[in-house]
Amino acid sequence: MSGGSGTRLWPLSNEARSKQFLRLLPVGDGDGCESMIQRVTRQLRSRWPSAETVMAISGAQRDAVTTQLGDTVRTVCEPSRRHTMAAVCLACEDMWRRGVPDDETVLVMPCDAWAGMDYVDALAAMVAAVDRGEAPLVLMGIRPTYPSAKYGYILPASGTERDGGAVPVEAFAERPDVPEAEYLISCGAMWNGGVFAFRLGWMTARMDTLSPGWREEGLRDRYDSLPDISFDAGVVTPVAEAGGAAMIPFEGAWKDLGTWLTLTDELRRETYGNVVTDGSGEGTHVINELDIPVMVIGTRDLVVAASPDGILVSEKSKSERVKSLARAIGGRPMYEERRWGTYKVIDSVRFGDGFCALTKQLTLHPGGAISYQRHNCREEVWTFIDGEGEIVLDGERRRVGRGDVVVIGRGRMHALRAVTTLTFIEVQNGTNLVEEDIERFPYEW
Amino acid sequence: MSGGSGTRLWPLSNEARSKQFLRLLPVGDGDGCESMIQRVTRQLRSRWPSAETVMAISGAQRDAVTTQLGDTVRTVCEPSRRHTMAAVCLACEDMWRRGVPDDETVLVMPCDAWAGMDYVDALAAMVAAVDRGEAPLVLMGIRPTYPSAKYGYILPASGTERDGGAVPVEAFAERPDVPEAEYLISCGAMWNGGVFAFRLGWMTARMDTLSPGWREEGLRDRYDSLPDISFDAGVVTPVAEAGGAAMIPFEGAWKDLGTWLTLTDELRRETYGNVVTDGSGEGTHVINELDIPVMVIGTRDLVVAASPDGILVSEKSKSERVKSLARAIGGRPMYEERRWGTYKVIDSVRFGDGFCALTKQLTLHPGGAISYQRHNCREEVWTFIDGEGEIVLDGERRRVGRGDVVVIGRGRMHALRAVTTLTFIEVQNGTNLVEEDIERFPYEW
Repeated sequence: MSGGSGTRLWPLSNEARSKQFLRLLPVGDGDGCESMIQRVTRQLRSRWPSAETVMAISGAQRDAVTTQLGDTVRTVCEPSRRHTMAAVCLACEDMWRRGVPDDETVLVMPCDAWAGMDYVDALAAMVAAVDRGEAPLVLMGIRPTYPSAKYGYILPASGTERDGGAVPVEAFAERPDVPEAEYLISCGAMWNGGVFAFRLGWMTARMDTLSPGWREEGLRDRYDSLPDISFDAGVVTPVAEAGGAAMIPFEGAWKDLGTWLTLTDELRRETYGNVVTDGSGEGTHVINELDIPVMVIGTRDLVVAASPDGILVSEKSKSERVKSLARAIGGRPMYEERRWGTYKVIDSVRFGDGFCALTKQLTLHPGGAISYQRHNCREEVWTFIDGEGEIVLDGERRRVGRGDVVVIGRGRMHALRAVTTLTFIEVQNGTNLVEEDIERFPYEW
Repeated sequence: MSGGSGTRLWPLSNEARSKQFLRLLPVGDGDGCESMIQRVTRQLRSRWPSAETVMAISGAQRDAVTTQLGDTVRTVCEPSRRHTMAAVCLACEDMWRRGVPDDETVLVMPCDAWAGMDYVDALAAMVAAVDRGEAPLVLMGIRPTYPSAKYGYILPASGTERDGGAVPVEAFAERPDVPEAEYLISCGAMWNGGVFAFRLGWMTARMDTLSPGWREEGLRDRYDSLPDISFDAGVVTPVAEAGGAAMIPFEGAWKDLGTWLTLTDELRRETYGNVVTDGSGEGTHVINELDIPVMVIGTRDLVVAASPDGILVSEKSKSERVKSLARAIGGRPMYEERRWGTYKVIDSVRFGDGFCALTKQLTLHPGGAISYQRHNCREEVWTFIDGEGEIVLDGERRRVGRGDVVVIGRGRMHALRAVTTLTFIEVQNGTNLVEEDIERFPYEW
């Protein structure tokens, strides 16, 4: 499950780049970094080299997944943004349609939990519990470290401890308030880690009740009519109430790296990117994705983050406020990692009469191509500054490279493909610079 | 005197924009802001409406002075960067050469001191003391507020208090250490405020000794052979030792707004530019000259400043460290205010083989013109996004406006003039993008 619009780690995460794609986590003993999705797929592959990973993602994330994981995972792309129940159904439909047998065990998990290999051991215990038929739905229970009001709680049936196997679940509580959470913890309740295991056939049978006719008509076309609720609410709660759920407890270290406070705890380095400090900062992390330098002098327990989207300076302890302030800012993503390469917005200006200009620096990977397209409301001026490529302009194809300037007027058909890594500056100008002003056409290179 | 390379207020000040040009000081009761040079010239003009102001500046500051003060001051531009004695001589030569009489009184002062109108009263007392012939050189003594090691100290002759007139100076000490400063203060010494008054003829006579033949040959051509010392060392110290200096004491509020700590003390607003806060910051000032938002959450006694040159996050109490760290960063100015308009660097990239691209957004004031010039090592691509102008390309003149794209190849002659406010994006590319790659030619519009 790869979701989230990513405002909690603003300005490094945005609509197109959720927190799970930030390459900040240490890998091995060196200075190398990996993202949350790279980390968790690496952990899964080390345990189950031949198991299939299906990622349920939003359309905006497709290119980032391809860039970071290549062909090692299968992606199932939501036609629109719904809650987790619909996404799980969509992934299960994809497996069923490809002929995955009904008795295959499916593990559902978030891609942004941070844990060690003992977490993977607990995943294996969940799969074993399903395989042994201990319960149709097996959950992972995380040992709570404080009475959080943001997690669900799983209450195991008392007097049912078993060595190594799953514990029957007595009740499931979605996001209680803090006093209730305290009471639940005193009764032995565990956090719901958002990890579930079941057989594929069990889930597809539930889908028959949920959305009759999906096998014939396909879920995709009726996606918006599925209930917009969480998997917890739509599946876990009723199954647990009917006595059909069991739990594998996990006692190890587990973190939701969803805020600057929790994420910076796991970083090995204090600075990333072009950063200058006087060395007197304490507990301060600085992450700079801009070309211009960030200078930090003194400061205690701060997080400083800069990207083309904006600049954050926050006390770590208050960093959960980023989310609501970032929503208030809004605006388009200023940086994106796409399948064909990356772009960043380097300048944006709007004049009194509504005319706009947007300047980007774009880099295409070798072989990366921008589809054959046209814009009706804007002109684009491309100045190539590095690499070699091929451009198609109204059907005419030619080589481009350093120093070439191409003016693409309104309504002109154009496509671009990189031969070597290709970098250019694009100046868009027009009265309506929206993402939607694009018509795409097929082109055979 | 307008000097300084301005690294102490990095990233808002740079080689071309010293601290005295930052428009941050409150003016009147409203939200309006003025710079230090705008403030001090306004104060002087309110007292002496018809006195001439001559600013000794570096070449890089000429356009900023013109933009902020228009024709209200005369500028004398140093041919190279020397210490203050050479600059005072150059300004006096300019007056002498224009026929200013020898008995005219000259007041020399820094443009970056912050004080009220009582400071101007003290300036008037200095002029009166010179006019009455109380001493050939009259200094301003500032009442010390702490034993600073960064100012010079003026020790008045004891037992010579006079009502309203100047006090003879017994000794002058350049930048003593702190214990010596404490001792001097206990003896009644005052800070040297860098303000001096004398008759023009007195100074030009000293220049005859200092650089014989300057009246015939001009100081400008021999500027680099003048001693590279301060006016304090070259003139004040020997004159004071010879008993030729007197002092007007100034007891009012006086500040050197040269660090973020002292400057932010005088700001009326807490945020400037595109800034979002949660309101929980204490004593935190945020100045953002970039288009992208700066978000500040919590924090205490910080200064946050962002410009195309970089981003600063500093504890105010440690902000004097900015200077040495900014020097270490180096680099070209990324933002400049010029006589014809402004530009900012929005992207800069250098490839493995040394090829570079630099992208700027430029805005020309109506009537503002870029001189007829050519570059031998770079190509420029101009995309016009707002306004109307005229371009000359290899002698051919035509109108340009929105959507026009002009490619200026290596060695091609070009000039540009704005008819209305004219904005364009410039992509420079080549193997050697240096400021010096420019040949200028005359052009009659």
